[in-house]
Amino acid sequence: MTVADLFVDLRSDTVTRPTAGMREAMAAAEVGDDVYGEDPSVNALEAEVAALFGHEAALFAPSGSMANQIALQLLVSPGDELLCDADAHVVTYEIGAAAAYGGISSRTWPAVGADIDPEVVAGMIRPDGYFAVPTRAIAVEQTHNRGGGGVIPLATLRDLRGVADEAGVALHCDGARIWHAHVADGVPLIEYGRLFDTLSVCLSKGLGAPVGSLVVGSAEKIERARTIRKRMGGGMRQAGVLAAAGRYALAQHIDRLADDHAKAARLAEAVAPFGVLATTVRTNLVALDLTKHTLDARALAAAARAEGVLISVLGPRTARLVTHLGVSDADIDRALAALPRILANA
Amino acid sequence: MTVADLFVDLRSDTVTRPTAGMREAMAAAEVGDDVYGEDPSVNALEAEVAALFGHEAALFAPSGSMANQIALQLLVSPGDELLCDADAHVVTYEIGAAAAYGGISSRTWPAVGADIDPEVVAGMIRPDGYFAVPTRAIAVEQTHNRGGGGVIPLATLRDLRGVADEAGVALHCDGARIWHAHVADGVPLIEYGRLFDTLSVCLSKGLGAPVGSLVVGSAEKIERARTIRKRMGGGMRQAGVLAAAGRYALAQHIDRLADDHAKAARLAEAVAPFGVLATTVRTNLVALDLTKHTLDARALAAAARAEGVLISVLGPRTARLVTHLGVSDADIDRALAALPRILANA
Amino acid sequence: MTVADLFVDLRSDTVTRPTAGMREAMAAAEVGDDVYGEDPSVNALEAEVAALFGHEAALFAPSGSMANQIALQLLVSPGDELLCDADAHVVTYEIGAAAAYGGISSRTWPAVGADIDPEVVAGMIRPDGYFAVPTRAIAVEQTHNRGGGGVIPLATLRDLRGVADEAGVALHCDGARIWHAHVADGVPLIEYGRLFDTLSVCLSKGLGAPVGSLVVGSAEKIERARTIRKRMGGGMRQAGVLAAAGRYALAQHIDRLADDHAKAARLAEAVAPFGVLATTVRTNLVALDLTKHTLDARALAAAARAEGVLISVLGPRTARLVTHLGVSDADIDRALAALPRILANA
Amino acid sequence: MTVADLFVDLRSDTVTRPTAGMREAMAAAEVGDDVYGEDPSVNALEAEVAALFGHEAALFAPSGSMANQIALQLLVSPGDELLCDADAHVVTYEIGAAAAYGGISSRTWPAVGADIDPEVVAGMIRPDGYFAVPTRAIAVEQTHNRGGGGVIPLATLRDLRGVADEAGVALHCDGARIWHAHVADGVPLIEYGRLFDTLSVCLSKGLGAPVGSLVVGSAEKIERARTIRKRMGGGMRQAGVLAAAGRYALAQHIDRLADDHAKAARLAEAVAPFGVLATTVRTNLVALDLTKHTLDARALAAAARAEGVLISVLGPRTARLVTHLGVSDADIDRALAALPRILANA
Repeated sequence: MTVADLFVDLRSDTVTRPTAGMREAMAAAEVGDDVYGEDPSVNALEAEVAALFGHEAALFAPSGSMANQIALQLLVSPGDELLCDADAHVVTYEIGAAAAYGGISSRTWPAVGADIDPEVVAGMIRPDGYFAVPTRAIAVEQTHNRGGGGVIPLATLRDLRGVADEAGVALHCDGARIWHAHVADGVPLIEYGRLFDTLSVCLSKGLGAPVGSLVVGSAEKIERARTIRKRMGGGMRQAGVLAAAGRYALAQHIDRLADDHAKAARLAEAVAPFGVLATTVRTNLVALDLTKHTLDARALAAAARAEGVLISVLGPRTARLVTHLGVSDADIDRALAALPRILANA
Repeated sequence: MTVADLFVDLRSDTVTRPTAGMREAMAAAEVGDDVYGEDPSVNALEAEVAALFGHEAALFAPSGSMANQIALQLLVSPGDELLCDADAHVVTYEIGAAAAYGGISSRTWPAVGADIDPEVVAGMIRPDGYFAVPTRAIAVEQTHNRGGGGVIPLATLRDLRGVADEAGVALHCDGARIWHAHVADGVPLIEYGRLFDTLSVCLSKGLGAPVGSLVVGSAEKIERARTIRKRMGGGMRQAGVLAAAGRYALAQHIDRLADDHAKAARLAEAVAPFGVLATTVRTNLVALDLTKHTLDARALAAAARAEGVLISVLGPRTARLVTHLGVSDADIDRALAALPRILANA
Repeated sequence: MTVADLFVDLRSDTVTRPTAGMREAMAAAEVGDDVYGEDPSVNALEAEVAALFGHEAALFAPSGSMANQIALQLLVSPGDELLCDADAHVVTYEIGAAAAYGGISSRTWPAVGADIDPEVVAGMIRPDGYFAVPTRAIAVEQTHNRGGGGVIPLATLRDLRGVADEAGVALHCDGARIWHAHVADGVPLIEYGRLFDTLSVCLSKGLGAPVGSLVVGSAEKIERARTIRKRMGGGMRQAGVLAAAGRYALAQHIDRLADDHAKAARLAEAVAPFGVLATTVRTNLVALDLTKHTLDARALAAAARAEGVLISVLGPRTARLVTHLGVSDADIDRALAALPRILANA
Repeated sequence: MTVADLFVDLRSDTVTRPTAGMREAMAAAEVGDDVYGEDPSVNALEAEVAALFGHEAALFAPSGSMANQIALQLLVSPGDELLCDADAHVVTYEIGAAAAYGGISSRTWPAVGADIDPEVVAGMIRPDGYFAVPTRAIAVEQTHNRGGGGVIPLATLRDLRGVADEAGVALHCDGARIWHAHVADGVPLIEYGRLFDTLSVCLSKGLGAPVGSLVVGSAEKIERARTIRKRMGGGMRQAGVLAAAGRYALAQHIDRLADDHAKAARLAEAVAPFGVLATTVRTNLVALDLTKHTLDARALAAAARAEGVLISVLGPRTARLVTHLGVSDADIDRALAALPRILANA
């Protein structure tokens, strides 16, 4: 018996377990030593993902955090600067790795959902020179985790690319959930790909593979990334067993994200009357802002758990519901039977 | 012939040269090996500065940057987080040292002069825990360099201390020009001192000593600071020759800062009609915002230089004038003869 | 067609591919989100490995390099010192991670196979204090990779533990191939376990699992290790698919290492007459020293490859043959048909 | 009253206090803001030192540790490797800065006085590549502090340069006391200079200036060094007051080192009969090895102190006597009256 057998698990799309088909793909995977570059499944996955985003190369990594950190170390030297928003995953959930391991200095613009004002970002960029820390890269997150799964509009990203080009700085996309943006806005992945110097994309969140992310970029960058990955301890041997799951996920699990979005919309509709929606729900995340509610995040999570529904506590007054391939329509029904009642009776 | 002999140098208060009295104090200084803790002049200076701020101990360092960085390394472990404003000296002019050498992750709130909204800061603090980067310290800058020499009101600092206490995080003051705040607002230094876990204070800017800053804090912190200073390469031997200048500056040059403030006010008054004052002038800095002027910062600096007046370019449309003990009333007259004319004729 | 289908692959025991039984175990693995601590297969593996070595806890990691680096970061703070031999994996093949990410200063004693003189190590230890870098940990490698798979005698390790205890420094074992030492010397794993503050052990070399290593230590250390692993990017989600392979390997593949050792002995016997054995062969590694041979390492490897046998080049005159579960008796026959002839005709 | 007034201080040549002539030079120094490159005394000193060693440029720094660390950061990127001996100042007395701040991985060859076997060093160098940490620089120390002030012969340094050239790695000289090597062996400084990519030289040890060292190298390196110095917190303002002392020391205090060497020889001769000389005395350091003596280092130091003579304890059985410009013939007489008696009566 595991958590997933007992509860409707809306904490995160990271909790998905491989499907039967995915397990078959893993069991049948051709493998080799990927540290030597000889794992055919990894090599195929890397080529496929690079092609999806129109880049020359990609590199498999054991986590989204490592994929992001490899990219940041590629783009920013120790003592130089990264700009991102104050709620970005790279300065929130990666345990300070950019500074601790990459020596990367960061400044942040205020986080307001997934919104970005390219003018504000432009105003923060500092030029190369002797006196001040030079800005080398800007990172955005698509979709935005703490921003309620919000989608940055393509036009905004294009403006930001213009800002980056004018200043001569690089642009990185933490694309752990870029698949959801692609499905929600109908923007081809390759359109996103061409806007960024590097992207990280994740197979183990919405796509449902057990383990793995990739860094995407130029051949030269990915060659250097291989050394950084080894230094980070991310060189795995017969990683093809994981890559096979990832290839299966890419083939089978992108289009179905629309279902997850629809389920999230049902959840959003049900809790909206209680004034707790932090942002408009666009994808598979439902961010709750409990500032004006009598229940705080811990209390809401405890009450939901008592009814068999797990949700995430992100802050004292911030909670999150996430739909994913492990959440069925029946699960949503169960959640809808519990959550509005809890919010109403509090 | 040096720069100071030829120009009215309004670039920075770092350009001051030791006065005759200060040189005498240096020539007569008793010295010893400060790495062994045996320099009587350094020891006396450290005790005096600690007492001024009501702290147990202080440590001499070769620069304000090193004093700040020692303090930050005392307060924040690698991978943990510092909050400050986006224009703070510690994330702007210290060449990324907090991240590169301290492994310190940073997020920033927007810089608006010297203003701070303690509520905004409180909202950014992240608690200790396994998932997110924990906030360990908040840094403020008094007076604020890029904030036009603005003074943070004592009441704001007290509110911020409350925010820090409630969250269990430390509060650092980059007090390179805290002397000016003391003179401008009439707040005793000891009042500032008690609000902060650590402060850095500088002898070589407004106070006019040639070299040196101090970190101020508890005896336990300063004991650890000694090791960090050695690792940073800041362990100097007969530093008493510098400390003697610092002691002289503390005794002779604090009260006279009022003159520098008055001179800055004269400059501000003269340029105000041209709509280029970035902030109200409170101390010895005059920040110019040339966004709406036909001259950009480089052009203004070049035109001023041609008239024998040096000013600082801080950004494409940002410039700065600074008064200090090397700027006489005659120098101000000379600047006032040139700057308004340049601004008017552009 | 992969490398393993075409060649007798004696390059490394990292090239092993999962057996049919192991693949079945993976396909049937119960999994959960290990970043949340909810993967039952990972939890079971961690408990089993901790018990094998008589320690309180263990943590799964994607590579041996990461397991070592997590341990070193647990034992040595930035700026403090690690001692090891000059050929140790931790200062050779981990891409400088101890210094680059852990800020760990290292000094080394000369590497002579797997030999260690505890007196020499004792003489290098520097005490805590203000002036010199304090030694915090000593690392050894059992068996020793560049030391030809040599086994450090239990008595030597006990003396070293005494040295460490007297000086108050920690002792780490890079036990990637500790299973081979256990089989070669008949020392129970728990006997090794009690001598070290931390150990890393690897499932993907001799034991034949596709991916994974563990750090072993006290509950307090492994709790902290979890944060470091996340910072390194080693937090994987449904890692149970890998852990299941590891559990299978622990149950099925330890005793069989004796076969690998016997095969290595056959190889050693065959090449010994050519004066190229670098060390006595004790386990599954055969180190070749070609200093006195007309062939250098690259030439030997090329000639062997032409005959369908792959070997590793470790230096201009250093090569290595490794036996593992992917090398059959027939493979050894094929190697023995080629290598002596190549060495004789050169 | 300071230490120097009460004791014969043989602890280190770092304890020297500025002479009257030096103080005059400091008092009269022309100064400017060296962070802006405008201090004429600093500029003159940097040009003089660069010329002495036949290099293009030099940079003033507040300590020998910082000068060394700037050089190492110039030569070795994070994660890459430095080789030096196990007693080198850079891995002993600089508090782990190379690893903690530079991310520099280090391996060491055994320290035997100042002796170096270029073959041993050559054997440790690892080439560039994906699998192992590449060696980027070799550091030597001339004269060698823990090696008893020993002088590395010019021929050995030339061989080592050959080793470095063949491998394509850089060569750094920690030349804190290179002046003593120059005087002892009669090798022109420029001969030393041409053998190294970078050197650090110190003004505040044997030369008797109160504060300061320089990094010497190519114009391109020193340009980058300026940024690193700022990041380390070594950017000082009117540093000319210190540079003036350094210029005076260069002009007046090099040749007189022969006196210090003669005094050290007198000390050595007096203690030699007790079997405690660790190495032949060549310069101003007398290293004592008390392994076979009944007194340990602390006991010897305490007994000497009771007789008005201060010596350094470097290890449990290792002590050091140092002569310098603060030690007169009468001081030596006083030491000679005490030390042999203490050693004889123990």
